Amino acid sequence: MPEFFNVLPPDDARALLLQHVRSIQETELLPTFEGLGRVTAEEIRSAEALPPFPRSTMDGYAVRAADTFGAGDVLPAFLTVTGEVRMGTAADMPLKTGEAVIVHTGGMIPDTADAVVQIEHSQLVGTPNESRFPYEIEVFRAVAPGQNVIQVGEDIAAGATILPAGTCLRPQDIGGLLAVGVSDVMAIRRPRVAILATGDEVVSPASVPSPGQIRDINSYSIGGLCIGAGGIPVFGGIVPDDIESLREAAARALAGADMLVMSAGSSVSVRDMTVDVIAGLGRPGVLLHGVATRPGKPTIVGAIDGKPVLGLPGNPVSAMIQFNMFGIPAIYRLQGLQQDPFHRKISARLTQNIASESGREDYIPAHLDETAEGITATPIFGKSNLIYTLVHAEGLIKVPLNHSGLMAGDMVEVQLF
Amino acid sequence: MPEFFNVLPPDDARALLLQHVRSIQETELLPTFEGLGRVTAEEIRSAEALPPFPRSTMDGYAVRAADTFGAGDVLPAFLTVTGEVRMGTAADMPLKTGEAVIVHTGGMIPDTADAVVQIEHSQLVGTPNESRFPYEIEVFRAVAPGQNVIQVGEDIAAGATILPAGTCLRPQDIGGLLAVGVSDVMAIRRPRVAILATGDEVVSPASVPSPGQIRDINSYSIGGLCIGAGGIPVFGGIVPDDIESLREAAARALAGADMLVMSAGSSVSVRDMTVDVIAGLGRPGVLLHGVATRPGKPTIVGAIDGKPVLGLPGNPVSAMIQFNMFGIPAIYRLQGLQQDPFHRKISARLTQNIASESGREDYIPAHLDETAEGITATPIFGKSNLIYTLVHAEGLIKVPLNHSGLMAGDMVEVQLF
Repeated sequence: MPEFFNVLPPDDARALLLQHVRSIQETELLPTFEGLGRVTAEEIRSAEALPPFPRSTMDGYAVRAADTFGAGDVLPAFLTVTGEVRMGTAADMPLKTGEAVIVHTGGMIPDTADAVVQIEHSQLVGTPNESRFPYEIEVFRAVAPGQNVIQVGEDIAAGATILPAGTCLRPQDIGGLLAVGVSDVMAIRRPRVAILATGDEVVSPASVPSPGQIRDINSYSIGGLCIGAGGIPVFGGIVPDDIESLREAAARALAGADMLVMSAGSSVSVRDMTVDVIAGLGRPGVLLHGVATRPGKPTIVGAIDGKPVLGLPGNPVSAMIQFNMFGIPAIYRLQGLQQDPFHRKISARLTQNIASESGREDYIPAHLDETAEGITATPIFGKSNLIYTLVHAEGLIKVPLNHSGLMAGDMVEVQLF
Repeated sequence: MPEFFNVLPPDDARALLLQHVRSIQETELLPTFEGLGRVTAEEIRSAEALPPFPRSTMDGYAVRAADTFGAGDVLPAFLTVTGEVRMGTAADMPLKTGEAVIVHTGGMIPDTADAVVQIEHSQLVGTPNESRFPYEIEVFRAVAPGQNVIQVGEDIAAGATILPAGTCLRPQDIGGLLAVGVSDVMAIRRPRVAILATGDEVVSPASVPSPGQIRDINSYSIGGLCIGAGGIPVFGGIVPDDIESLREAAARALAGADMLVMSAGSSVSVRDMTVDVIAGLGRPGVLLHGVATRPGKPTIVGAIDGKPVLGLPGNPVSAMIQFNMFGIPAIYRLQGLQQDPFHRKISARLTQNIASESGREDYIPAHLDETAEGITATPIFGKSNLIYTLVHAEGLIKVPLNHSGLMAGDMVEVQLF
């Protein structure tokens, strides 16, 4: 039997794994919109200022602010409207003292103007025909220089960094890039995650199992989690429980991928075999065998030459929880992300007490409800190897390492799948 | 000028819109794994029990529980081991009183056994050769009937509902379906969301804008949000600000899609034109013009014959916030989802005071930090039309309708993009 490594707390275990993950260096150039969800391979700077011209934030009149100083309801300022800046055209008319031009929201203001009077704060003098310039207006409120104007470069300055390397592109980032003419982005290649199922009892989901056999579901639940994290699952099929088959399948799968996940059987002999196989794949091999969590303690965490390798417990709930804990952060790290995105945990109010053991992190599937007082989490108790506890759950309640349990009414952290 | 509708609070406005959305009835049959993220069109029942045979949750011995009653360290029970159930094979050996068979975690137990003794709670008598049955063991702990066994159908019963219609398939759902041999699923067709940009100042992101022109970014930031909600963006391009062009483009876009989004200019005249165009497309037309939020008040919410139609403000931040508020729930509803998924809001501790006006919901872009005390949210103040306030943000702080502001230290709701 191989040497057993220490059982580490999950945060330490994950940190140890991530230390051994080398980010993918291969990149690909993508049209910006197709970069959604992808991670930038290099810092992106703006060649242009945004906006490239001073823009009005209101419908109204571009003015020289000084011409309105002291204006009020009793003593309005009188200005002469000399023209209109039509949308999409340059504001190339000069503005003399005492003059104003019509501008629309988002339109350019002349460089001789420095503020915009909102149309509601003005009034025509007499009943002129607006199409016949010049005409007179009264202005009832003073505007400060710069008021109701977005200055050149106020959104982003020319030469400024738009996004650092290692940014996962969201819709607003796509918008920010396109706004300054960045029409393609250099992204990290998506990680290929090889997934092997092992076990003499495991058959393809397309089969009708004989007595004693079960269908492989871990490949696909783990595969689904991969996709959500930006990885590409590469299904390696089902490998029998003998060490030579497993060695060969693991070596071949790892060679063609950036990460290897083995969903092993749960018996001790199969776990030991998985440890041996990972140890034999290269350096450093097995980093730890055992994590202080329930479910999932017998997880094997390793790395081979910068590629993360996981040996997951065979039971489908443990496998998903452990992949969520180690596999997803590893896929992010392979893409060069330094921090997980912020969408994987929420706070909720617990509806029932939960007992736990100190010194171990527990994860309990939970049903979430949206109530007038906020989100509540109701634990779904059941044997940890029933996939339907997860099907009926919206998240996992985390019982922290050094708690002996949680009480109804406590605010708890819920991890979402 | 058309009649102005009441300005509604956002929750009421959204409820009004969703009342007018008709879910898509067209379905498509997909291989189960390809159904990830798709919504089920019909209830799915299990034809099989899971597990289909009683399974051990431990490495150990399948026994008749009654044979161990009263066993303890001082007075162990003696049992005769008559064989082994190998993984993936049927446990077809009968078990007489006083007999036991070796079973592995996940393996089948004989139907004449009703419990499993963990191997750690037993000891061989003498030093027999394990491969030579029968041999004797001592058992030091009693097991109850059913202990360490998953019963037939304990995960899911034959004939039970696996998932109701209108479920968005997650990785664990894929696993649950494959486990019972459901190899394809009937899913709602993905909604096609037509997106039109309007504005004489708007040019394609591939263009170099002249003075007074800006690039269309809303089509793509909104398109990105569509994809995240399961929709397919259909880019209709840029339409000039004249009513006939707009009418024609909107009618054509709506005919080929399940939803229409017009990212209109922000000036009053353009908004009025958008209202007229939506009103002219069919019934019921414009549902409301104005939502009590900042940014985004001038949003136009409508529906034509079950298809949602939105007229978004032209400024990119308002457009995204309003699409998040109305567009995403509408895309979910088109797919038959009755409730948004739970991943769009988190709680965080506010780091600075925020002033607001009562009677209006404010959304303020926020930078999130993960600290030892939990997630903190720091508001990013700035004119609401700067896309980079969103690029630098991880979420939006919501200031509820009837608050005059929020204080540093308050727990606040943060919506994530």
